Amino acid sequence: MERTHCGHIRTEHVDQKVKLKGWVQKRRDLGGLIFIDLRDRSGIVQTVFSPEHNEEALQVAEKLRSEYVVEIEGTVLKRDTSTINENMATGEVEVLVDGVTVVNESKALPIKVDDHKDLTEETRLKYRYLDLRREPMQETLILRHRTAQAIRHYLNSNDFLEMETPILTKSTPEGARDYLVPSRVNPGQFYALPQSPQIFKQLFMVSGFEKYYQITRCFRDEDLRADRQPEFTQVDIETSFLSQEEIMQMTEEMLQSVVKEVKGLDVTLPFPRLTYDEAMERYGSDKPDTRFGLELVNMSGVFQNSGFKVFKQAVESGGKVSAINVKGFADQYSRKDIDHLTEFVSVYGAKGLAWMKVDGESLTGPIAKFFEEEEEHSILEALNGESNDLLLFVADKPDVVAASLGALRSKLGKELNLIDESQFNFLWVTDWPLFEYDEDDGRYHAAHHPFTMPQTGDMNQLHEDPSNVKAKAYDVVLNGYELGGGSLRIYKKDMQEKMFEALGFSKEEAHDQFGFLLEALEFGAPPHGGIALGFDRLVMILAGKTNLRDTIAFPKTASASDLLTQAPSQVDQHQLEELYLQSIAKYEDNEG
Amino acid sequence: MERTHCGHIRTEHVDQKVKLKGWVQKRRDLGGLIFIDLRDRSGIVQTVFSPEHNEEALQVAEKLRSEYVVEIEGTVLKRDTSTINENMATGEVEVLVDGVTVVNESKALPIKVDDHKDLTEETRLKYRYLDLRREPMQETLILRHRTAQAIRHYLNSNDFLEMETPILTKSTPEGARDYLVPSRVNPGQFYALPQSPQIFKQLFMVSGFEKYYQITRCFRDEDLRADRQPEFTQVDIETSFLSQEEIMQMTEEMLQSVVKEVKGLDVTLPFPRLTYDEAMERYGSDKPDTRFGLELVNMSGVFQNSGFKVFKQAVESGGKVSAINVKGFADQYSRKDIDHLTEFVSVYGAKGLAWMKVDGESLTGPIAKFFEEEEEHSILEALNGESNDLLLFVADKPDVVAASLGALRSKLGKELNLIDESQFNFLWVTDWPLFEYDEDDGRYHAAHHPFTMPQTGDMNQLHEDPSNVKAKAYDVVLNGYELGGGSLRIYKKDMQEKMFEALGFSKEEAHDQFGFLLEALEFGAPPHGGIALGFDRLVMILAGKTNLRDTIAFPKTASASDLLTQAPSQVDQHQLEELYLQSIAKYEDNEG
Repeated sequence: MERTHCGHIRTEHVDQKVKLKGWVQKRRDLGGLIFIDLRDRSGIVQTVFSPEHNEEALQVAEKLRSEYVVEIEGTVLKRDTSTINENMATGEVEVLVDGVTVVNESKALPIKVDDHKDLTEETRLKYRYLDLRREPMQETLILRHRTAQAIRHYLNSNDFLEMETPILTKSTPEGARDYLVPSRVNPGQFYALPQSPQIFKQLFMVSGFEKYYQITRCFRDEDLRADRQPEFTQVDIETSFLSQEEIMQMTEEMLQSVVKEVKGLDVTLPFPRLTYDEAMERYGSDKPDTRFGLELVNMSGVFQNSGFKVFKQAVESGGKVSAINVKGFADQYSRKDIDHLTEFVSVYGAKGLAWMKVDGESLTGPIAKFFEEEEEHSILEALNGESNDLLLFVADKPDVVAASLGALRSKLGKELNLIDESQFNFLWVTDWPLFEYDEDDGRYHAAHHPFTMPQTGDMNQLHEDPSNVKAKAYDVVLNGYELGGGSLRIYKKDMQEKMFEALGFSKEEAHDQFGFLLEALEFGAPPHGGIALGFDRLVMILAGKTNLRDTIAFPKTASASDLLTQAPSQVDQHQLEELYLQSIAKYEDNEG
Repeated sequence: MERTHCGHIRTEHVDQKVKLKGWVQKRRDLGGLIFIDLRDRSGIVQTVFSPEHNEEALQVAEKLRSEYVVEIEGTVLKRDTSTINENMATGEVEVLVDGVTVVNESKALPIKVDDHKDLTEETRLKYRYLDLRREPMQETLILRHRTAQAIRHYLNSNDFLEMETPILTKSTPEGARDYLVPSRVNPGQFYALPQSPQIFKQLFMVSGFEKYYQITRCFRDEDLRADRQPEFTQVDIETSFLSQEEIMQMTEEMLQSVVKEVKGLDVTLPFPRLTYDEAMERYGSDKPDTRFGLELVNMSGVFQNSGFKVFKQAVESGGKVSAINVKGFADQYSRKDIDHLTEFVSVYGAKGLAWMKVDGESLTGPIAKFFEEEEEHSILEALNGESNDLLLFVADKPDVVAASLGALRSKLGKELNLIDESQFNFLWVTDWPLFEYDEDDGRYHAAHHPFTMPQTGDMNQLHEDPSNVKAKAYDVVLNGYELGGGSLRIYKKDMQEKMFEALGFSKEEAHDQFGFLLEALEFGAPPHGGIALGFDRLVMILAGKTNLRDTIAFPKTASASDLLTQAPSQVDQHQLEELYLQSIAKYEDNEG
């Protein structure tokens, strides 16, 4: 007899013989009968063991425990109206058991499969194979599968070729820290695991493939935060001959079709767009969550001649003053509450958090006395201040204002339940700075990567005024997460050389590390550009999760360990010798 | 104006304005006109620059060289009947150029794109991005893309979930040599790159996912041969509750649908099946190419009382005699030719290659005199000997007979042009030995891997008579290549423990290395099994190639190097220090 899947049995199967294979989800003994909820990937069905129908099967059933693997043959029956379970897809039927075989037993589980209570993450990761039996994890990984296929479906239909790039690649000093792989055949030499297939995908364009994609693993040996993993999956895309506009459109269409295919929801195109400068000004963030308001308002104009010196001086000294109007919540914030907010913004460098409340048409609070009627009026007008609004101000250097009020906005949005969790708010952030200044080593770094096309036609500006050069780069943001980033790439050798120079590479260094790319740009490289999306993060948001680890089958902990297999681990000395390596970890231990 | 793809232009587009973007494939100057063959991924179209139509464009065209990237606007014309090129898809049309822009220039290429002559592999790999511009490489990588999608299409339609497993995993001593990745966060510890996702896919089964697949990268740090790469791509499949028969059927259907989708060819199901013992007996190979005959015939019965002592003694001492009838080619093999064949088989350990020719109904050759008429008759009958047949014999230990005649069969099949290259001969080899004896370290190893289910129900046999235990394992063979292998897996803890014991693991070693798997088998592990297919090899055969490197975009050389990016390479000392490592490669150099 062919196997029937538990979750697929319906009233139309009544009176049919079925053969089921699966796990004992639950056993109940009731009035001489035994009920076993049998589970397979498709779902759960109730089976009934009756002494009158089959005494032998009942005796086996008495020995069944949770998570035993069994094969059951039986007949589908319609349940009595009184026992129909409307919460189960198979709730109108049950299977009267003719025979049962125990295929494998199970010890008592350290993780209950049908219990959705929060378990410690350590237990979940140690017994990941059991954690993955739980419905939320099954659902998430199935959604992950469907998301990958939806992406492929769109890209395949649009003439993209899925092509593979090496995992054993060359280490380059730019970007994050590489994972290294010692070579046995080439003593003293190392491969690096790729941080992204960036250069290879550009070379595919030089090869004339025009439209490439790959859903691929990337690696960064960085200190981990909650939303980072040492290995992560990236949807990597590159195209030739397309404008920035066309690449953004293609990306939007792809994401629209993915959300439709996976969630059944409609996303409106085009996505809203903000320049980087606008995003920082209005949201204090380069990845704003637009599912709620609380926008930052630049008050520098209002306060340039303010009676409140702190504000006036901030503006005069090249800083700015911005504010958030926490609309209608003034009565919910005590002085002590506001002290906590002040503490919160101080982490982001803000020297203080000024505040006022609106009472009728007046401002109240410790600093209200500094504002004459006219200025009070301007403040209320600029912030659309109404009674019971709480107004929060930071006066500082522009980046401190953005960082502190941006973080405060996010915090308040969550605290005050202003976020509509059902929304998928996509957004583009464009016109990024090409460089960012690194205070630590006193030089400019590529904000995106060194292959990003500058917006300037005047390449001398790269040297003379780097901080004001914008890039042909664009990030796609979803619900406050950076979902992905892309850019047009430099496709002429001389421009790429000038770029390396601006980043402080000597000619020799540029040639040593990227000589093959520079050479490739001399052989008819087409204009090209692309985007890379964080696949784990996309799945996380689509699944309504907040932790990347819940979207990855076998993730690593914050110390980059796999608690299940105990990786990384010590290896045999001869393995190191074959690689011409010696561990100095023990010396460190002794001295440390 | 929207871009039109060069290769798509047909007579139906005549009189339409088009905008083309692509590469100059070829330029010809003829009677005051300039003809540029313009190429993009879709193909090639001829464009015409005429002084009467547009003098300015013609002047630009004069500067165009091969592989310049250009944008062209023009009008589609029907060619004169006399100039139609039937070898081009666009051969009935040409584009009269209104305007042309040089987008990027190109130096003269070290690899000609339209020249299919064999280049040195070194040049091809160093300039891989140019090698990939060549039509054969474009076609192969497009076929690779289509093969991957065809596999996914079949598996997705059959309820398989594509799920990812880690690349940073745990090193285990079984199997091939691991690539190691030093951990920075965990000093003195190492990850290993996976040789296959074997254990993770089994854990997915323990998790209840029932049907898993992944097209994933695997790694082996072995000394490379022509058909090996340090990283390779595997189609990895695992199922629960299916019998060996069902898994084989599913695999056959998948391969049938892939060949249909990619090549448009019909493959007959079921695939022929041979046991391992039959394959060795009849083809001297565990991956026989059945596109030609030249089967090995076991002559031990015929020769057990032979007048030729060499044969008789071989049989008596536990060896065997087998023969190949090279039908109808006796007159093409001189003594010297046969001496070469003797040399050839000696590499495989054969002490000699006996031979006779059939002349009429008699045997000729140096050993013919040892056979009386009756024995001569038996030989001719057993080998279906007819005039002008060449009969080749090896008498030796069974494994030497198989290895030497198996290799000889392959060599003769190629040499004599007996192989129909258009055929796709799939084949199953089943009933593999569970163990193989390793003479070097004097113990048994798992022939497949330590998780393979033995055919014996009597687990004591694992210890008492390991060499005769067969495995529930099956290989799929295509045209003489091992395309993939699979097995049912052990799903009970006690059996897995006995297996480790038979492989010489102490209890402690088994627990240290595979404790998590043993534990997982105690929590309701379902019966499961699967298969893994070599994706690069499948693509190679489908593309009609004989070198794996021709199917991989950026392959490594035989010394595991990437000639393009120069990986592996030396890294900064501080990178090693962060990993608590010291290279001793230099000391080795000094001493070596």
